[in-house]
Amino acid sequence: MKNIAYLGPRGTFTEAALLQLKTAKDAHLIPFETVTAVLDAVRNGEVDAALVPLENSVEGSVSQTLDELASGEPLVIIDEVAINVKFSLMARPGTKLEDVTLITTHPHAFAQCRGWLSTALPDARVVPALSTASAAEEVSDPASRYQAAIGAEIAATHYGLKVLAHEIGDNSTARTRFVLVTRPTTPPEMTGADRTTLVIFMHEDHAGALLEILTEFSVRGVNLTRLESRPTQKQLGDYYFSIDCEGHISEQRVGEALKGLHRICAEVRYLGSYPRHDGVIPTMHAGMSDVQFKDSDSWLSNIRKSGNS
Amino acid sequence: MKNIAYLGPRGTFTEAALLQLKTAKDAHLIPFETVTAVLDAVRNGEVDAALVPLENSVEGSVSQTLDELASGEPLVIIDEVAINVKFSLMARPGTKLEDVTLITTHPHAFAQCRGWLSTALPDARVVPALSTASAAEEVSDPASRYQAAIGAEIAATHYGLKVLAHEIGDNSTARTRFVLVTRPTTPPEMTGADRTTLVIFMHEDHAGALLEILTEFSVRGVNLTRLESRPTQKQLGDYYFSIDCEGHISEQRVGEALKGLHRICAEVRYLGSYPRHDGVIPTMHAGMSDVQFKDSDSWLSNIRKSGNS
Amino acid sequence: MKNIAYLGPRGTFTEAALLQLKTAKDAHLIPFETVTAVLDAVRNGEVDAALVPLENSVEGSVSQTLDELASGEPLVIIDEVAINVKFSLMARPGTKLEDVTLITTHPHAFAQCRGWLSTALPDARVVPALSTASAAEEVSDPASRYQAAIGAEIAATHYGLKVLAHEIGDNSTARTRFVLVTRPTTPPEMTGADRTTLVIFMHEDHAGALLEILTEFSVRGVNLTRLESRPTQKQLGDYYFSIDCEGHISEQRVGEALKGLHRICAEVRYLGSYPRHDGVIPTMHAGMSDVQFKDSDSWLSNIRKSGNS
Amino acid sequence: MKNIAYLGPRGTFTEAALLQLKTAKDAHLIPFETVTAVLDAVRNGEVDAALVPLENSVEGSVSQTLDELASGEPLVIIDEVAINVKFSLMARPGTKLEDVTLITTHPHAFAQCRGWLSTALPDARVVPALSTASAAEEVSDPASRYQAAIGAEIAATHYGLKVLAHEIGDNSTARTRFVLVTRPTTPPEMTGADRTTLVIFMHEDHAGALLEILTEFSVRGVNLTRLESRPTQKQLGDYYFSIDCEGHISEQRVGEALKGLHRICAEVRYLGSYPRHDGVIPTMHAGMSDVQFKDSDSWLSNIRKSGNS
Repeated sequence: MKNIAYLGPRGTFTEAALLQLKTAKDAHLIPFETVTAVLDAVRNGEVDAALVPLENSVEGSVSQTLDELASGEPLVIIDEVAINVKFSLMARPGTKLEDVTLITTHPHAFAQCRGWLSTALPDARVVPALSTASAAEEVSDPASRYQAAIGAEIAATHYGLKVLAHEIGDNSTARTRFVLVTRPTTPPEMTGADRTTLVIFMHEDHAGALLEILTEFSVRGVNLTRLESRPTQKQLGDYYFSIDCEGHISEQRVGEALKGLHRICAEVRYLGSYPRHDGVIPTMHAGMSDVQFKDSDSWLSNIRKSGNS
Repeated sequence: MKNIAYLGPRGTFTEAALLQLKTAKDAHLIPFETVTAVLDAVRNGEVDAALVPLENSVEGSVSQTLDELASGEPLVIIDEVAINVKFSLMARPGTKLEDVTLITTHPHAFAQCRGWLSTALPDARVVPALSTASAAEEVSDPASRYQAAIGAEIAATHYGLKVLAHEIGDNSTARTRFVLVTRPTTPPEMTGADRTTLVIFMHEDHAGALLEILTEFSVRGVNLTRLESRPTQKQLGDYYFSIDCEGHISEQRVGEALKGLHRICAEVRYLGSYPRHDGVIPTMHAGMSDVQFKDSDSWLSNIRKSGNS
Repeated sequence: MKNIAYLGPRGTFTEAALLQLKTAKDAHLIPFETVTAVLDAVRNGEVDAALVPLENSVEGSVSQTLDELASGEPLVIIDEVAINVKFSLMARPGTKLEDVTLITTHPHAFAQCRGWLSTALPDARVVPALSTASAAEEVSDPASRYQAAIGAEIAATHYGLKVLAHEIGDNSTARTRFVLVTRPTTPPEMTGADRTTLVIFMHEDHAGALLEILTEFSVRGVNLTRLESRPTQKQLGDYYFSIDCEGHISEQRVGEALKGLHRICAEVRYLGSYPRHDGVIPTMHAGMSDVQFKDSDSWLSNIRKSGNS
Repeated sequence: MKNIAYLGPRGTFTEAALLQLKTAKDAHLIPFETVTAVLDAVRNGEVDAALVPLENSVEGSVSQTLDELASGEPLVIIDEVAINVKFSLMARPGTKLEDVTLITTHPHAFAQCRGWLSTALPDARVVPALSTASAAEEVSDPASRYQAAIGAEIAATHYGLKVLAHEIGDNSTARTRFVLVTRPTTPPEMTGADRTTLVIFMHEDHAGALLEILTEFSVRGVNLTRLESRPTQKQLGDYYFSIDCEGHISEQRVGEALKGLHRICAEVRYLGSYPRHDGVIPTMHAGMSDVQFKDSDSWLSNIRKSGNS
């Protein structure tokens, strides 16, 4: 790939995650200000792919990413990566910890460092920024009224700041999962440890719909790894579902489940099959392997021809 | 067809039912003494097809037919017919109703005429026979100790008896359903009002198996019209299922349900798709028509190729 | 108990089973000719209890018993017993095996001894009798045209016959399960290895009803050990269900399942909770013990009072 | 109630919503800066109740509210209110629309007015604020570098600003639902149009858990009106469920569903039963009314005593 967009500006956790992807090695990495701008860059062909955050183990799903992928020109996920979210307090060189009274950062970062701040800097005020990276950028301006920013260490490098404190997040296991999206394309090869992402819109006023949706998966032995409801923006109480399931669309069990959903739902949008970042190989339910699907195809086909089961 | 076997001897309700089938018109109809003998005649090629009773609205399923079809060399059902079961009391010409003190008939016929007998012939004794037709045959012998038999009117015709009383059954709506079986062959064309018969053996010790089996059908919008459990003859509490469902094996929804069952059950034996005797056209569940299955096939196939849903 | 009826005449397998029940020891045992007569004797107070066959591992359920229990004045099962069904060939003393050319027995017994007969007595004819015991009784008459009967060994004892061949059944594991019924009464104490029998009539034209019925059980972790469909005698394709489930009606999980069924079905008839003949203790599903039900009652009751969960 | 806290500062949509609640009429309304601070004020007894936003028809659920209610000292919802979210552009008196080049507002408000801004003020820059109300407050300072704020009209009133443009949101049907919470207390009386809110934690590594949870509701005819998954903050892919269902905890169907969940889930936290803001009366499923539950109780209780069903 030549050009890959990411949620910027330079120095975000998204950039840190992107640098871990092989495919980014020789690519030109281009920051955009919002998830919408990042994805539009893919949609209009300005870039070949884009990395955006999908969910965080503390904050939950990234609504903007889910909503952007659920509507508009179709996009598909071809890869994913997850990184530990380690927050650093960074300042212009020469600043000491005790000098810090005014900090800027993204509200989520603030929420996740509240414990450390109340102990280490009980009197400092925190002002919201659009992103942790833009906070760092702002602080790098010697005229800034802020002494420090909270963000990814990579931001300190980019903006010439010095890290005053490492890993100041309250939850040391916080992780964010990012997805690499492109315009629709043939799914990447199945690896055996794959995930498939879908968006499902139900027919209106259908109380038992979710139970039916889950049954379409369970009958084919396909486990879900994430199920999120999001408003359709029409009215309170009207939702669509954003779903991750185990397996690859080239698998028969996944394909049959998707076809079943396509038939009973108002809309099923395929958002990609791709290797899981954690490499977890799902336990196959009895009767659900491709070999067994193929065997059942021949079995049925023989009955239809000869009446012999 | 040249030769069709039926559960005899001549004069049974099975013969009466067989005469209602078009296919029997120019065929040679051959009675056999037991269901086993009838079906063996098909299996070994002695006849082209055979008619046997499957279920009765009063007595329930005919166990021997179910068990014979569930094991041994495979057979398939290609047609069905149902007739009203009307019992007649018949005697040698010259016999009067008041002369009747000893009657012979099949125990089921006796059970179904008990009400009439207790009123009309309270003092008569009834002795069991192997079939209603053999009872009539016995009575036709002038040396018989029985004055009368209870059976189908057709038996009176065959054996030169006179009907002393018509429709003496206690349940005037009693009906029996018969199936026409052959050696395995391409299923008859779909008519839109079809039935499919299956035999299902579960894996051992699987408490939730029936729920799973029913779910395989319901997910594909296929209703059952009969579900019978029968002992596998291994031990008390070990059953197989004999099932009739709506639809034809050439339909996608039926085919997919069968494939699902084949994958999760120990054995699924196909016993035929054929036109329903009552011509009832099933209500198709939303999303389950062949057109919608075909559409979902193209939809999936396009995603697998292009990533576009 | 003073008087216990059983399916006679003397010498049936039912009598053999009854003799194994403790409660029969000091009772007066009274044979009746049909299942209907046996159960009527309980219903009208002529006897205190009655033993009737419910299912056989080879022949399946005993339709007459199921249908009689499903309608008419209510009866309940308070105990069960199962015995191996061992067929003997018996004749008047002095008769040799090679003399036997005409045999009488019940058609089911004939069906189960067909293999032995075809080898040992290939030329003998078999004529149907109303029961194996009445066959033995008939043979005990020196004037009988039959040389031998097939039945339970106990019949030989009763009717002064000599056993010519023991255990001539083709399936050496054949067993029959019998139930002891009384007029409705407080259920016997729970033993931990109990069974509960029910009859369920669905509302008409309800395609998914069986799935709903099974779900009422499975949600409360109650496994079924037998499910039988039987015609309601109204029309072909209209069935009721005869069900055995694990557990005792005094258990919370069983009680809640029954209440759920009572609310959604046209009729639920309770046919008794009683100790299993095999003493099998069911595996309790997580969350389904009485202790956990009681705990959930207190939990809910506390929320309703205080809002505290 | 004497004191009611709300998500402030003064001039938020939450304040606008609170003014619509009868119970707020004679109460002292106290703004707090964050959802956490608002709810802590209830928990520690500083106020009697608090109003917080729960979900928005465009942005989805308010994660902070869900997460705060799901953990820590228990709280319960006793009422809810929903209002149309109408955004206004407001400025210091004397400012004209064409003067506006620098705007401040909450990022969500910015996202929802993007369409209007791109047309009406294509060259204006927007800088994030912690809330729409704090943005208005900031603009009210004559020394502010911002000419305008986007927020609720009530903020203009509080901070002496003039509305330059009304209803500038892109989605005119946007609504937010707010809940009034207190320390645990007896649930408010059932109205017939009620909602119950729950938080459910599953046992670990239980793939089919959601299907089981939904079945506990559906078996008792209880429809869900909202189902949200939220991270447990332990690891990526580990979720809890936040659920709204139809009905009141005093109803038998709701109570039984809750007890079922309590038995099979790791934790069920009750968050209150209260009147729905939209007054929608749910359609009762057949067999699920309190009358029918009561009837099934007597029915079972009679069987347990007398054996009579």
